[in-house]
Amino acid sequence: MTNVAIIGVGQTAIGEHWEFSLRELAFQALSQAIKEAGIERPDALFVANMLAPRLSDQAHLGALVADYSGWRGIEAATVEAACASGGAAFQAGVRAVASGLAQVVAVCGVEKMTDATSESVTSALATAADADFEGAQGVTFVSLNALIMRRYMHEYGVPHAAFAPFSINAHRNAANNPNAMFRQPITDDVYARAPMIADPINLYDSSPVCDGAAAIILCPVEMARDLGKPIIRVLASATATDSLALADRRDLLALDAARQSAARAYAQAGLSPQDIDVFEVHDAFTIMAALSLEAAGFAERGQGTRLALDGEITPQGRIPISTMGGLKGRGHPVGATGVYELVDVVTQLRGEAGANQVKDAAIGMTQNIGGTGSTVVTHILRREN
Amino acid sequence: MTNVAIIGVGQTAIGEHWEFSLRELAFQALSQAIKEAGIERPDALFVANMLAPRLSDQAHLGALVADYSGWRGIEAATVEAACASGGAAFQAGVRAVASGLAQVVAVCGVEKMTDATSESVTSALATAADADFEGAQGVTFVSLNALIMRRYMHEYGVPHAAFAPFSINAHRNAANNPNAMFRQPITDDVYARAPMIADPINLYDSSPVCDGAAAIILCPVEMARDLGKPIIRVLASATATDSLALADRRDLLALDAARQSAARAYAQAGLSPQDIDVFEVHDAFTIMAALSLEAAGFAERGQGTRLALDGEITPQGRIPISTMGGLKGRGHPVGATGVYELVDVVTQLRGEAGANQVKDAAIGMTQNIGGTGSTVVTHILRREN
Repeated sequence: MTNVAIIGVGQTAIGEHWEFSLRELAFQALSQAIKEAGIERPDALFVANMLAPRLSDQAHLGALVADYSGWRGIEAATVEAACASGGAAFQAGVRAVASGLAQVVAVCGVEKMTDATSESVTSALATAADADFEGAQGVTFVSLNALIMRRYMHEYGVPHAAFAPFSINAHRNAANNPNAMFRQPITDDVYARAPMIADPINLYDSSPVCDGAAAIILCPVEMARDLGKPIIRVLASATATDSLALADRRDLLALDAARQSAARAYAQAGLSPQDIDVFEVHDAFTIMAALSLEAAGFAERGQGTRLALDGEITPQGRIPISTMGGLKGRGHPVGATGVYELVDVVTQLRGEAGANQVKDAAIGMTQNIGGTGSTVVTHILRREN
Repeated sequence: MTNVAIIGVGQTAIGEHWEFSLRELAFQALSQAIKEAGIERPDALFVANMLAPRLSDQAHLGALVADYSGWRGIEAATVEAACASGGAAFQAGVRAVASGLAQVVAVCGVEKMTDATSESVTSALATAADADFEGAQGVTFVSLNALIMRRYMHEYGVPHAAFAPFSINAHRNAANNPNAMFRQPITDDVYARAPMIADPINLYDSSPVCDGAAAIILCPVEMARDLGKPIIRVLASATATDSLALADRRDLLALDAARQSAARAYAQAGLSPQDIDVFEVHDAFTIMAALSLEAAGFAERGQGTRLALDGEITPQGRIPISTMGGLKGRGHPVGATGVYELVDVVTQLRGEAGANQVKDAAIGMTQNIGGTGSTVVTHILRREN
């Protein structure tokens, strides 16, 4: 589709970074990425962030991060689509290069959630839902996902334990990722005995509140070749949307936007699910991993948990997911997550995933979800020699 | 530069819209624009907004507005660059079309400020400044602009009364604009006797807190021709940034980002200031109008107020500004303002500006400013036959 290549990536470890401010986290990720790209200064910067205006009293992150990174003067803006902000900002970067109106573009996802009270974080996260019809009723994000998970269990006769493999795979992979928040593998037993958060979602069905930043440098493929860089090409970039409110959905379990954005991405790339070697899903909750696998064509409806139970989602399986720990194990700094997913795929395509390496990974896909499936951004990347 | 054309515009009147929610305001503007374009459904929507996450507990406006407009499924995201959000979202739209990755794109700026307390609005607006080094000190936006204005008066020996023509021109033009918030012309005497807000900024140096939405539909020029639409072509789209904090500026009065973004826009369009027939400036405060005129090359440094005193900024002058009332008279719903500026230029280029029409206007420019000049987005549009 496009002639856009990724020539540098960077990330901070995910965790509770009380010692670093928003701009410092962004700078750490960007400085790694730009160094790897071997570039002095990008033409434009797109920052992905969701919560800073509420949790850090800071909007206007584009100019702030550009300046703090030493790039005063460049074009910059923030792109927001709730937890799909990272994917949306990356898409803006791809467009800027693909249009020929920018040459080198930096994308940085950054989020800082742990300096605020959990009440503030919960209500800030609820701004991804429909404020007038859901938020105003006191609905939280975990409770909305609990409604979906309960419906899934009811509709398909799936027990809660069927979701355990998603969490176990994520934590096992995270244990090998030095940038992951949680480095301890878990067992079925740990999963089963976990405290309940919002029935049926327990602690190990949920991703953590955390801080982190990830960054990517983009340029035209021809320029990447001239620079002698290994080519990771952006084959597809597609977004689809659905209602914010769950009550307005056509079908609670279809995840229409995920299906549509995946279909558009496959069409752009001229590929089908069989061609994907690694798939970074948006496992903010285990139910979202199951639905994303189904919507993207890797499992029939109601069979997402089956795929996980069969071991097909591990790095050795048919469709490896959450290979560096996913949102569950690596962490979910919400506005940054979509960029982390892309960095993880790049890590796999470069063969740098260590113990979690997916053998011969050449084509990788990400699906970044905002709200309860209200904005879904799908990207497909390919390693070229 | 690009092959992108504007084929439809829409706007709500600006005011205190307690009877309409955010999504309803956006819908009103978008439905006008899409009807004018004669299109059923765009491929993508970029929403410009700054304050909804804080003032309306609502982020994720892309998907929300897409769905409420009847376009469930399309690509959508929010673009934020403080008060330059409108220009930044329009630029994202231009890129999407220019890259060939989208065909018809809708851009909507929407802001709802009057349902909150003035304390909430003041602190929400302060998120455009540097939270750690300015906001944390209790600095407000009007006080930051007051520092700049005081410096300008001191440096160039300009009296406060020299800024009156900006306000008088804006209010005179707003009186003829049915969508403007203030429809009463003012006099030098009214300006001089206005209550002081933050010395030297008085009530008539400041734009109002208000609600509103404006929308634009973009498509390739060839498609616009096929549709039989009059062509308003996007000749240039350029953003530049500066520090968020005033204390970090190279020169308090240079408005470097405005100068750079204008220079880039002139270069893209192959034009110079002499070619511009109408210039919609970001007169959130009268001082910003003066500095924007200087940075964009219409006046020497310190001569912006002279231009105004000489009557050259009126619709009959050498460089008409704020021709439909500007931020001061029409209103400044912050995240929407950049889109309103573009709609005003389109109105002029189509010859639909009524009593405020700039004779033979063929090329128009907008300059949308975020923070105290921290993000500046310049666009140049041309009417083609």
